[in-house]
Formats: sequence, structure tokens, C-alpha cells
Amino acid sequence: MRATVMYGVHDVRVQNVPDARLVEPTDALIAVTRACICGSDLWPYNSMEHSDAGRRMGHEFIGRVEAIGSAVRNVKKGDLVVAPFAWSDGTCEFCHEGLQTSCLHGGFWGGTKIDGGQGEAVRVPLADGTLVVLPVGPDHALMPSLLTLTDVMGTGHHAARAAKAGPGRTVAVVGDGAVGLCGVIAARRLGAEQIIMLGRHPDRIALAREFGATDVVSERGDAAIERVRELTRGLGAHSVLECVGHGESMLTALGIARAGGAVGRVGVPQEGSIPTAIPTFFRNITIAGGPAPVRAYIEELLPDVLEGRIQPGRVFDQVTTLDGVPDGYRAMNERKSIKVMIKF
Amino acid sequence: MRATVMYGVHDVRVQNVPDARLVEPTDALIAVTRACICGSDLWPYNSMEHSDAGRRMGHEFIGRVEAIGSAVRNVKKGDLVVAPFAWSDGTCEFCHEGLQTSCLHGGFWGGTKIDGGQGEAVRVPLADGTLVVLPVGPDHALMPSLLTLTDVMGTGHHAARAAKAGPGRTVAVVGDGAVGLCGVIAARRLGAEQIIMLGRHPDRIALAREFGATDVVSERGDAAIERVRELTRGLGAHSVLECVGHGESMLTALGIARAGGAVGRVGVPQEGSIPTAIPTFFRNITIAGGPAPVRAYIEELLPDVLEGRIQPGRVFDQVTTLDGVPDGYRAMNERKSIKVMIKF
Repeated sequence: MRATVMYGVHDVRVQNVPDARLVEPTDALIAVTRACICGSDLWPYNSMEHSDAGRRMGHEFIGRVEAIGSAVRNVKKGDLVVAPFAWSDGTCEFCHEGLQTSCLHGGFWGGTKIDGGQGEAVRVPLADGTLVVLPVGPDHALMPSLLTLTDVMGTGHHAARAAKAGPGRTVAVVGDGAVGLCGVIAARRLGAEQIIMLGRHPDRIALAREFGATDVVSERGDAAIERVRELTRGLGAHSVLECVGHGESMLTALGIARAGGAVGRVGVPQEGSIPTAIPTFFRNITIAGGPAPVRAYIEELLPDVLEGRIQPGRVFDQVTTLDGVPDGYRAMNERKSIKVMIKF
Repeated sequence: MRATVMYGVHDVRVQNVPDARLVEPTDALIAVTRACICGSDLWPYNSMEHSDAGRRMGHEFIGRVEAIGSAVRNVKKGDLVVAPFAWSDGTCEFCHEGLQTSCLHGGFWGGTKIDGGQGEAVRVPLADGTLVVLPVGPDHALMPSLLTLTDVMGTGHHAARAAKAGPGRTVAVVGDGAVGLCGVIAARRLGAEQIIMLGRHPDRIALAREFGATDVVSERGDAAIERVRELTRGLGAHSVLECVGHGESMLTALGIARAGGAVGRVGVPQEGSIPTAIPTFFRNITIAGGPAPVRAYIEELLPDVLEGRIQPGRVFDQVTTLDGVPDGYRAMNERKSIKVMIKF
């Protein structure tokens, strides 16, 4: 079969790899119908040390069940299923708590030992815990929005939840990538009225406004902090969604948080420590978040997607085939595309 | 009047200072009846740059109202009152939210511009918002426990709340000082069953056990992390109370937190950043806390103190007079005393 493999900085190839196949009785074999490229794929794209073996890529996919192991009960051949970006058993205490990204027996797609989503097929471990059956066909018009449930919509929702977004609270979103844009949707969905988007790309800002952003701050650093304070009677935002992961963006997020407020961080941190421990202490700022348990959120968000109340699929502004994946990485890395969907 | 002034490292003096007096119509003048020395007073005691002017000390006191300004309504001459470690107007939006330590017009005792609690009298700004009248006399047997409501009991409670302590959750307390010990009381009061105290001083550990600690870990660093994991089926504690403020203690606190858990930090941070941003991200650890809004907690905790359900006053193991304050600092700094009460 063909799949995407990364070998080093800016070196992404689509090539033949061993066919995905069932190994454990709890496995399902999935023929991928849709996948996409994630902002977090750009971290290794810009920093990965060269590897001769390469690293399988992609953690966002929807597909058709081709075969199941003997112990699988919840999905059957022919089902269209959506996979969260982490696989999980669904039975351990973390799964029961809704924190499937800490599943005692789970893991993450891609790398050197497991299939990635940016390929023709995927062996899904722990299929019963991991997969959610979709009640629509593979070419349904809602497919882009359903695909965001694998990661970015659930991740934006996690940021909003970690930052305690809700009615009566002012929300600020740091980062105008697909996750930040989904964070705007999530904040609006949770009842926030004032939603401030920090971003500077006109296409993304326009989409943010359609999703519910009421204010846009295009400044950076201290100027951004000052501008958010102006927009919030000098106090800052109750809920800040940190959707980038740079030290600089975390500094901005902490700086615009109101005393007693919360920063929900979902951008994969690129620095080893969290800055401003002392001012954030004196202002009682909560720092929460991490990899979103999107498996839990699929069930929460799916009805809103199916009934059209949220349209996160609009973050996709480019569609390609598997062969177009290397160009897709390039387009996203050069900020020419917000997010690229792969259609099989 | 006489009051405590710090001039530099290990240089604390009791001396004559200008009499406290009413300045604003919202002030009250308090004759201090009880005060104490705080673990946080030891930070400047060990690090303060020499100052010719000196710095007035003390932020924990109970006293009798001697006089009130023309605008004061909630307290009257002769009332016995307890003051939280921060003064606040009681009317701004942060006060209404119960975050009086971020009051828009409030401040903290001591320093160069305002009286400290370790002195014969204190001018209390914004008396209506700040003071709480006590329904007992100045020599009541509960005075030590009532005095802890000025800071350490409310601070331990804040750590427990920030760490989401409650029924079914395992709590670990880093730091066996007066705040950590009050954190044990708070965790127990909020319904936690397993309470692990990290500490190594026999007298403090014994008190922690009486307050409700079920396990004691005397190891430090990685060994402490391993021991807490052994006590929690390898998973760590749901709620960790960081009651020290060193980088090392925060590292331990983050290391013993369970995935999805929370660290409530109340030890004043001595380092500029929070370590382990990346592992704590991947484990979805929440970091919360800061200066406790003890003004809000006085009302919550007072009934439990008055009815004897909690006895935080037991953290005082030494009583002195104002003249004995320098010796009190020395005793606490050498860990010969947990906490020193000053009786006027």
C-alpha cells in the first residue's frame, strides 16, 4: 500500500510500505477515505533529524472497516468510522474518566511502529475503544466537518473547556490556525459572547469572524497584551485558548489572562518551561490543557456537526490526493493553506 | 507605638515607629491582640537586601477596633476583628467574584507605606471590605485557630480548592509547614480519604497524621515521586498541594500528579518559570492557585472553627510577646518552631 513517510526537514514522501493487516484480535483494518495534515505535523517538518527508516505520518482519518479481529464487537465490516488522534481501550480508568489520551493501553498514530492516517490503510489497535461509527456515507457533504472531529475541533473544544469558556466570560484565542479557529467555534458554542481572536492572516481572521469572533487583535507581544486589555476594560480575558505552543505565544496567553482566569493550552509546547511563574501566581491564573481526549468529545460534538449547528469543516481550504501530500505540507508550512484535506 | 521592622538578612528589630492613626474616612484603627510570624516572612529574612528605611512586617492579626473613619459602617469601636492578609474594598468585581487578593483598590500589609501586623496597632484601609467581626472575646480559647484564618488555614484551603480536592480523590501535600498542615485539614474537610503528606520533621508529621494524613513520604526528589506512585497504584495523586514555592518542590508536585490531575500552588514561587512544561502538557496536568482570597474563606471556615470541627490553631507550637519576635523568626528559620504566635 502507499503511505506518507517523513525522513527529515522538508522531506516528506508518499511511497510503498507493507500492507496494513490485522495483528491482534482487538484490531480493525481500515481503508482510509479521508485524512488531513495537521499543524502539529509541521513541527517535525521543520525540525526532524534525518532518519533512514523514516516516520509514518498522519493522525486524522475517517475510513471504511475492511476487516475486524475476532474480539471486536462495536464495529463491523463496511462501517464508516472516525478515529480520534489517539487510540484507547475504552475500559481503563482514564478512559472512564474521559481522558483517553492517557489510556493505560493506548497510543498515538504514526512513527515507526504503527500506521499513520496519511496512507491508504491503517491497522487500528483496540478498535472497540477507539473507533466511532458514523451514520452517513463516505461522500456525505458533512465529511470535512466530521473529519475535524479526529483532532482540531476536539482540540479547540478542549482548549475552551480547559480555559473554562462559558456564558459571561470573555474568551481570547491565541493562534489563528485550524485549532484556534475551532477554538472560536467551541467558545461560541459554550456560550461566550466576547471572543477575541489574536491573528494576522486576513483569510483566517475572516473565517474567525464568521465562526463568532467579535474582536480581532493583529498586534503581537506586548502590543497584543495592551490591545486585549483595552478591549476588556483593562482586566484581560477570563479564558485564553493557547493554540500555538511557542514560548512567545504562551507568554502572550498568560499576559492577556485576567486575574483569576484560565489559560487552556493545546499547542504542543516547544519549550521546556512555562514562563512568568511569579506574576501568574500573584494573579491566580490557572494553566490547564494538554492533548485533547477527542474520543470523548466526538460523542459530545457529533450531533452538532450532523445537525449543522457547527461547521468546523470550513477550516479546510485545500483538497488533495495522497500523491499531493508533500505539496500540502509545503502549502501549510508557507501559510498558503489553513488546512489540507486528503481525499482517497 | 512599637512594631517589627526588617532591615536585611536575619536583621529583624522591634522598635518605636509613628503611631498608627486614621487617615481616610474608610479606615479603622486596630489595637492588635494577636499576630504571628509566617513562613513567607522567612523569604525576606533570608534574602532581603539591606534597607536603611526598613520594612514593616506581619500580615496576620486579630485586634480590637479603637476608632473608625466617618464612612465605616460594618465595624464599630470595641469590636474584635480578624483581618485577612490582604485588604480589599469588598465592592469591586474581583471582590464580588471572591478573589479579594486581586481587589482593584486593595493591597498587602507591611512594607514601607502601610502598617504590618507584627506591631501594636494597624491602620486598616477599606475597613468595611476588609475586616470580619468575631463573636468571641480577645482571650477566647479558640484564638489560635481564629488567627489562622488570617492566612495559613485559608491558604491551605485555597491550595486544596485549586487542586480540586474532594471525595474520591487522592491528595498529596508537598511541604510540612503550617500551610501544608492546614492543607491536610482542608483536604480532609473537603472529603478526601487518602491524604499523603510529604515531609520529614517528626513533630510536623505527627500533627499531619492527627489532622488526617493517611500516608507520609519522607523521601525527596525522584525517590519521593516513586514512593507516591507506589502509594497510588502507579498513577499519582489527583490533587497536589504545593505549599513551599521552591523550583524543586514544584518539580516534585508536578511529578506526583496523576494524569488529568491538578496542582494547587500557594507557596510563593522563588523561581521565574514553571518546569516540565512538556510532560505536564502530555499528562493534562492543571496548575492553579496563587495568593488565597482568605477574606472569602473566613466566612466559609469560621463556623467550622467556632464549632471545633477543625483545629488549625494547633500549628502554633510557640507563643511569644512582641519583644520576642526576633527570637521567633530565628526559631522558625531553624525549624525549631512550626509557627510562632505573638500575644499582646
